[in-house]
Formats: sequence, structure tokens, C-alpha cells
Amino acid sequence: MKAIFDERQRKHDPRHFMANGALQPNPEQPKRIEILKAAAMAAGCEFSAPGDSGMAPIAAIHTAEYLAFMKTIYRRWQFIDGAGAEVIPNVHPANRSDSYPKSAVGQAGYHQADTACPIAEHTFEAAYWSAQAAVAGADLTAAGERAVYALSRPPGHHAFADLAGGFCFFNNSGIAAERMRMAGRRPAILDVDVHHGNGTQGIFYRRADVLTVSIHADPARFYPFFWGHAHERGEGDGTGANLNLPLERGTGDEAYLKTLDTAFERIAAFGADLLVVALGLDAHVDDPFKGLAVTTPGFARIGTAIAGLGLPTLFVQEGGYVSDALGDNLTHFLQGFAQA
Amino acid sequence: MKAIFDERQRKHDPRHFMANGALQPNPEQPKRIEILKAAAMAAGCEFSAPGDSGMAPIAAIHTAEYLAFMKTIYRRWQFIDGAGAEVIPNVHPANRSDSYPKSAVGQAGYHQADTACPIAEHTFEAAYWSAQAAVAGADLTAAGERAVYALSRPPGHHAFADLAGGFCFFNNSGIAAERMRMAGRRPAILDVDVHHGNGTQGIFYRRADVLTVSIHADPARFYPFFWGHAHERGEGDGTGANLNLPLERGTGDEAYLKTLDTAFERIAAFGADLLVVALGLDAHVDDPFKGLAVTTPGFARIGTAIAGLGLPTLFVQEGGYVSDALGDNLTHFLQGFAQA
Repeated sequence: MKAIFDERQRKHDPRHFMANGALQPNPEQPKRIEILKAAAMAAGCEFSAPGDSGMAPIAAIHTAEYLAFMKTIYRRWQFIDGAGAEVIPNVHPANRSDSYPKSAVGQAGYHQADTACPIAEHTFEAAYWSAQAAVAGADLTAAGERAVYALSRPPGHHAFADLAGGFCFFNNSGIAAERMRMAGRRPAILDVDVHHGNGTQGIFYRRADVLTVSIHADPARFYPFFWGHAHERGEGDGTGANLNLPLERGTGDEAYLKTLDTAFERIAAFGADLLVVALGLDAHVDDPFKGLAVTTPGFARIGTAIAGLGLPTLFVQEGGYVSDALGDNLTHFLQGFAQA
Repeated sequence: MKAIFDERQRKHDPRHFMANGALQPNPEQPKRIEILKAAAMAAGCEFSAPGDSGMAPIAAIHTAEYLAFMKTIYRRWQFIDGAGAEVIPNVHPANRSDSYPKSAVGQAGYHQADTACPIAEHTFEAAYWSAQAAVAGADLTAAGERAVYALSRPPGHHAFADLAGGFCFFNNSGIAAERMRMAGRRPAILDVDVHHGNGTQGIFYRRADVLTVSIHADPARFYPFFWGHAHERGEGDGTGANLNLPLERGTGDEAYLKTLDTAFERIAAFGADLLVVALGLDAHVDDPFKGLAVTTPGFARIGTAIAGLGLPTLFVQEGGYVSDALGDNLTHFLQGFAQA
């Protein structure tokens, strides 16, 4: 299986992370790259670097205002007296329709939904190449590859059109799907990360031309809290083209695989001709976030099941944090798919 | 001048405050009470405690969902493993219409707009009595007092119907105005705090029966960033019943007093029969937030000018942080009004 990664993705190394009113180490570490890359290679992946497709495929789903913010904010932050080392928001609008300020602090609050997406000097560059990996993977998949793995890190599925969040800046899975659509294809996104793909949902919520399906721990008591509930079905033209399949905390392999069948039915009904899998590995029973309880053999079965759809498939890396099982889970998943 | 304060307002003593990506001491300290109370007494105020008017006047402008959150969240926060000492949000919805979670962390993000309104064990109680002081002041003013001073602390004007923020939990000025309206009166709120009264604006934004006017440092580069711009005029029935008068950073007495005339014209045109002054003192030249440059004699002139409106007036304390001038500014303001 072809795989894509750019060395510049390593340059984002976030420090700040607050949860439950307490500071903690940020779990989205560059160390994830080594583990994921080795695991993909163990499953037969051959890595190459992406070409540079420029800003256009990123700007196809992110607003120019947001991209200008991402490009300039770290430099502007340096002019604030007593500013911290990373751009971290401390005040947020109540609605996207609220007024847009000029100040760096105000714009940070407008464009960063939470304290899990600090921006440092090289964050834009790393996120840019993470997105390019997804674009290159989309092009290969649309050109006829059976399957491609994009090691997109920093991840993307919590990023909305104009809002970073949850370790994510550019929505790599969404960028890949939109790239496919602009090539005349009809992509579906299947998000198997333990967290709901809220940014992806938000980007396509009013659109009927990209199907978004997410299986995740019930957000009633799990990040991202405000999105991912079953009643969120899309709006306007997009009504019915968004499917959320929240699972109870601690759900294991059998119930997960059964839920996957529901996802497959919707993907088939949509008439998708390409599949983007937003591939988080944090549904694992030993993941630090403790959302679901998929086993390592379970990931192989999920991979096999997805192969059964028969669609050319792009895997875009999302979450999955440093643990003993992280690499094994990716290897099993990709092998499960490839050996189906 | 009659003045209202309850000793239980002291029980809120917030610690956490993050600004510009760096932790700092929270400036909304109980120590403000001593300074403000002594200053009001120096201007001739005679303090008494408010009666207990119950939840109804607070619930008249805050949602039951939000009030249940405020009442229960500190206790629920204790059940989180590794939780910090105060309730501090770390993840926020993009819009008020996003789904509402069950978890304490999710609800904190939904109901706390920023990191400047930490909730501890006695926050609800202190905010409740701060609101009761405003209610008692409203009743006295509606009953015929020429002027009343409510030492409402914690302050209120950044609190929306379902959202705390900027040191504020219950919108004391809004609660007072709504109390007056329910007594058959036609109140206007004039907010002279250096920060825009965003919560007050939000609460009455679609209503024509309470006029909201705010004079403040231009939010393009000043808290609260997303509100307080001149183009925000109200919506629906409330169009034209909200007037924002943002001033350039560093604006002094003369320009401030001229702007006040514009506020007075709108209040007269509205036909207000009672006035609520959301009385921040942080427009002072030496205030730590460095927004405007009103002098201590300037505050006396502002008080005198407001008296010229000839309306029964309730002063509700808002911002103004610990500095050498804080007490003098309040004394001058109230004396300026009383001696007009």
C-alpha cells in the first residue's frame, strides 16, 4: 500500500493542554509519527513525500480569514506584552455570527474552540504538510489505487471551516474528500476515531455531495460534547447526508462491528465511489481517553469489514495517542484491510 | 444615597485567570468590596442588606438550564478524576444552537465563555446576593428614590442569558432593569464600564422595551472583542434599541463627555422613566486594563452629567479593579451626581 508523509509535519510540538480545570502534557506529540510510520511499514506501506499542491485544496474548505489567521497569528502574538509561548485562546464568541475583532487575542478566541490546539512557530507549516499528505493520497486514490495511507499529523477531523480544536488545524479528511469531489467523484467519509468528527460534520453539514458518517463514543459525556449526537442529521441540502452513530462508553468489538454495518448501508445508499476513512485508533481499550473498548484483533476485523465495501479507499490518520498498543492497532487495521 | 450590599457577596474569591496565553492572578478580588464600600460611604451612602427576592427576578433573564448549571456544577466537578480546584472551561461550542451535553466539562464550556469566570464552592451564593442587591436597588428606585447604589460584586454585565464570562455570572444590571420593566416602568441601561456590556446587550438584543447603551474602549482590540462594535444595533423588535459608542484606546474626559451627550439623546428619545447605570470605574487612566483615560475629576463630571437627565437612577457596580484611584473614582462619581 502506498503511504504519504512529509518530514515537515514533525515541526509542530504542542505543549499546552488543559482538561478538567487542570494543566496536563499535550498528548498529540511528534513521537506519534515514529510509532505510526513503523506500524504502517510493518503492514506493508511504502512511504513517499507528497508534492506541493499549494493552498487551493486547503482553501476549498477553510475560509480565507481563518487561513490568514493561521498563517500570521504566531508572529502577531509576539507583540503582546507578557504573552505566553504558544497562542492559546482565553475568550470565545457565543456564535460564529458575532463580530470579528482585529486583536490577536480576540481572533485566537474566534478561531480556536478549545485549549487543545496551541499554535507555535511551526504549527502552520506542519499542518500545511499534513494536509498535503491527504491531498496526495486523495489524488492517488482517485487515480485508481485500491488503498492509500496518509500519515496526516497534526490530525484534522476536529477542525471546522474557520475553527481549530482538539489538536486539529486543517481538516485533512475533509480536504481529501473535497479534492475527490472536485475531480468529479462522489466520496463518503467514514470516521472511526473514538471522538466524533465534528469539524468534518460542520464543513459538509449543508451539503449533499459528500456523505459524512462517524462512529464514536457518545458525546453526551465525551469530547467534543456539542456535536456527534444522533439527532444531528445535516441541514438544508445536507439533511440526511450526515450520520452519527454514538456508542456507549466501553463498547467492544462485537457491538462496534454491528454498528459498522449501519454505516455501510448508508454509504451504499449514498452511491459513494470513493471512501475516505478518518482513521483514529483511539477507540482501543487501552487508549488514554478511555472512550471505547475495541481490541487489537478488533481493529483487524474493522479493516477487513471496510475492505468489503469494495471502494477505493484513502486512510487519513486522525487520533490515537501514545500507548503500547498504538502501533499494533494500526498494523492490524491495515493488514486486516489488505488481506481481505 | 441609599446603598445595598450583602456580606455573602464576599464568598466568591476566584483564583484562575488566563490572558494572552499566560496565567495571571484573577483581578476580581474580594478586596474590591472594602475599597468600594468605604468610597461609597465617603460620598454619603448609607448601606443596608437586601431582602431575599428569590430566584424569580434572576430567572426572568437567565435560562433555567443555566441557573441549574450554576447551582450544581461545583459539586458535580468534584466527581472528575484529577479535576482542578475551580470549574474552568476548556472546550466551547461554535454556536448556541449546538447540542447540549450531559458532562460537567461540556456544560462548563457551554456556559462559560472565557477563563475569567472560574466557579468555586461559594460562587453561586455570592452571585445570588450580588443580584439581590441589584433587585433591592431596583425596587427602591422604582418606589421613588432619586438614586440608589447597589454594590453588586461579583459584577454582571458580561453575563448573557446562559453564559458567564469576564468575572460575571448573573447580569445584575439586566436583572434590575427587567425588575423595573415588570413593575410597569420603561428603563434604560447606560453602561459606562470600560468594557462593552456584551451580556446586557445580548439579553435585550431582540427587545424594544429596555434600551441598552454602552460607552467603552473599541472592542476591535479590547475585551470582549466579539461585541460592542458600532454596527451592532439590535435585531428584530430590538433594532435600534441597542447603541454602542466605542471609543479609541486612551480617550480622555472631554471626548468621553461629548460621547455621553449622544447616549443621553438616545435615552431621551426612548422615553425612559428610570435609569440603570452599569457603573464600571475601569475607564480610569490608571486602571490596570489601560482602555480609556478618564481622570478622577472626570468621573465627577460624568456623574454630574448623568444627574442632568433628571431620571431616578440605580447605580449597579460593575468593573473597576484594585488600584490607588479606585475608591476616589467612585466617591467622585457619586458626589458628582449627588451635588448636581
